[in-house]
Amino acid sequence: VKAVVVGGGSWGTAFARVLADGGHRVTLACRDAEQARAIERTGWNPRYVTGVDVSDVSASPIDAAPLGEADVVAVAVPSRAFAEVVAALPGTSPLLILTKGLDPGTGEMLSTLIDRRPVAVLSGPHIAVEVGARRPTAAVVASTDWDLAVSLQRAINSRFFRVYVKPDVRGVELCGAAKNVIALAAGALDGLALGDNAKATLVTRGLAEMSWLGEACGARRETFAGLAGMGDLIVTCSSPHGRNRQAGELIARGTPAREVAATIGMVVEGLPTAPLLRDLAHRLGVRVPITEAVCRVLEGESRVEAEIEGLMAREPAPEFPWDVDALEPNPPETAP
Amino acid sequence: VKAVVVGGGSWGTAFARVLADGGHRVTLACRDAEQARAIERTGWNPRYVTGVDVSDVSASPIDAAPLGEADVVAVAVPSRAFAEVVAALPGTSPLLILTKGLDPGTGEMLSTLIDRRPVAVLSGPHIAVEVGARRPTAAVVASTDWDLAVSLQRAINSRFFRVYVKPDVRGVELCGAAKNVIALAAGALDGLALGDNAKATLVTRGLAEMSWLGEACGARRETFAGLAGMGDLIVTCSSPHGRNRQAGELIARGTPAREVAATIGMVVEGLPTAPLLRDLAHRLGVRVPITEAVCRVLEGESRVEAEIEGLMAREPAPEFPWDVDALEPNPPETAP
Repeated sequence: VKAVVVGGGSWGTAFARVLADGGHRVTLACRDAEQARAIERTGWNPRYVTGVDVSDVSASPIDAAPLGEADVVAVAVPSRAFAEVVAALPGTSPLLILTKGLDPGTGEMLSTLIDRRPVAVLSGPHIAVEVGARRPTAAVVASTDWDLAVSLQRAINSRFFRVYVKPDVRGVELCGAAKNVIALAAGALDGLALGDNAKATLVTRGLAEMSWLGEACGARRETFAGLAGMGDLIVTCSSPHGRNRQAGELIARGTPAREVAATIGMVVEGLPTAPLLRDLAHRLGVRVPITEAVCRVLEGESRVEAEIEGLMAREPAPEFPWDVDALEPNPPETAP
Repeated sequence: VKAVVVGGGSWGTAFARVLADGGHRVTLACRDAEQARAIERTGWNPRYVTGVDVSDVSASPIDAAPLGEADVVAVAVPSRAFAEVVAALPGTSPLLILTKGLDPGTGEMLSTLIDRRPVAVLSGPHIAVEVGARRPTAAVVASTDWDLAVSLQRAINSRFFRVYVKPDVRGVELCGAAKNVIALAAGALDGLALGDNAKATLVTRGLAEMSWLGEACGARRETFAGLAGMGDLIVTCSSPHGRNRQAGELIARGTPAREVAATIGMVVEGLPTAPLLRDLAHRLGVRVPITEAVCRVLEGESRVEAEIEGLMAREPAPEFPWDVDALEPNPPETAP
């Protein structure tokens, strides 16, 4: 398989390593021509990810990459650049979305921006430095084109990187966007040293609100229990490498939200995603109390401590709406 | 409310603290009379949990505890002692199960051993030392008796310990038993330093097999996405305090399985639960590849490294059986 990975950040670089391990011919296409030259010359990409040898991967600027003859083009640029980068790609090869976020222009899933190509999405618990070091993990590839999904599964699957397939593109995309928002909240708990019980509670209730929003978008609830949902959420909220978790930690300790991305030095997708997700939830009439709390803190309207107290002080309720399905006609109020 | 907590281990002690914080009259009833005297005299239980002040809790041997006049009796003894302890309890007060495991005599859920009393189960992400220190967490109380569930919720809920109610007793019990088995596997990954992606993958696939087994037992799949399932599983697999995680770590580093409980010095529920759960899965015809792998390692038939390779090398598959529902009549084989 001839593959082009567009985006020379940490995940693009690590994913190029995964494809090269599968014996494929891989080009890493960078938006920054100087970075491409450095990777091509040295075989490493130390600015974004350490310890990942890509000496058997070609690196080039995007406009010089063999996009027209690729069997698959994987895109791993930040969500804010996704629409522009994808619109400028020549050819009609299948496109594999690696970016996790929403389109800032429309607030929509990134796959909705693509109309001329077959589309699939890859997601899962993927801290780049671990994948680049061939530590074992698993992934899902979602596509409504089942033959495309299975052919990508066969091409990418390895002893270190187990790939499952599924049809729920929308669910996988929503998971990838929303988990970064929950990770901001999880990092805030770390910043206040509230412990592992609190974190596990937040992650569980966070996944619940992600899945309610997902169902309202037409996603399958079960997708949220899978590798793109629970799996990626867990690692994003727990790994010391997780940028969104780090950002939440910094904010809880007093760094202003507008300075935190600069402090981290890489894109923190949860920051632009949080208000987009809140707006989406409002449009669909879905309650997302954790996402709302994150937005209030990011917008300087509230402090982390007050939001946690507020979440804990809500009226006691059943765990899930369906826990009271059997109790009609006078069910207790269900608060998420 | 007058409450008796039976079992003076770490969780019984911390839960007595939660009840006392609610303003209730609490007795901690210990199987070991000498331990009861020490707690009553000092107000602390340093053998099992540090930093939890229980000076406002009475401590007594079980046979001297005010069991007949209690509004609720919470039981937190090891699963191997549960049947005997519960059979000997006087009175007919509602019983709240805190123990997480299966009855070794029958292989059944612990609630099946109780016939003379109303029953509820409490579960969630509850590292005892954190709960005892009033760090925030949440819990579920499950009962088929909704009035009992709601009255316990009102009695237990606090600013630090948020309680949700639900009717799925069987699901909550199965979660509590099975999560310890998955945590043995998670600890083994820690022992081999395989990283956060691998752990998140294991936890996600572990919860999937827990939920398949649960559905076959009549539990609701959604329970596994809640605090008793995902929440407790995450904390059990990640906290440095998790005994089952610790046991798995020791085994992966070479401690024989039969010595590991003695090394840890407290009950490791996953060790007796693993073969019971495998037998249950066999009776019900459910595939539980992670539980099977844990059993093979515990029984000395295999090594952790070989089991991980085996899990990663299985034929590529859809993520969940229902991911191929739309693909009849010739769906790809679904391997869990």
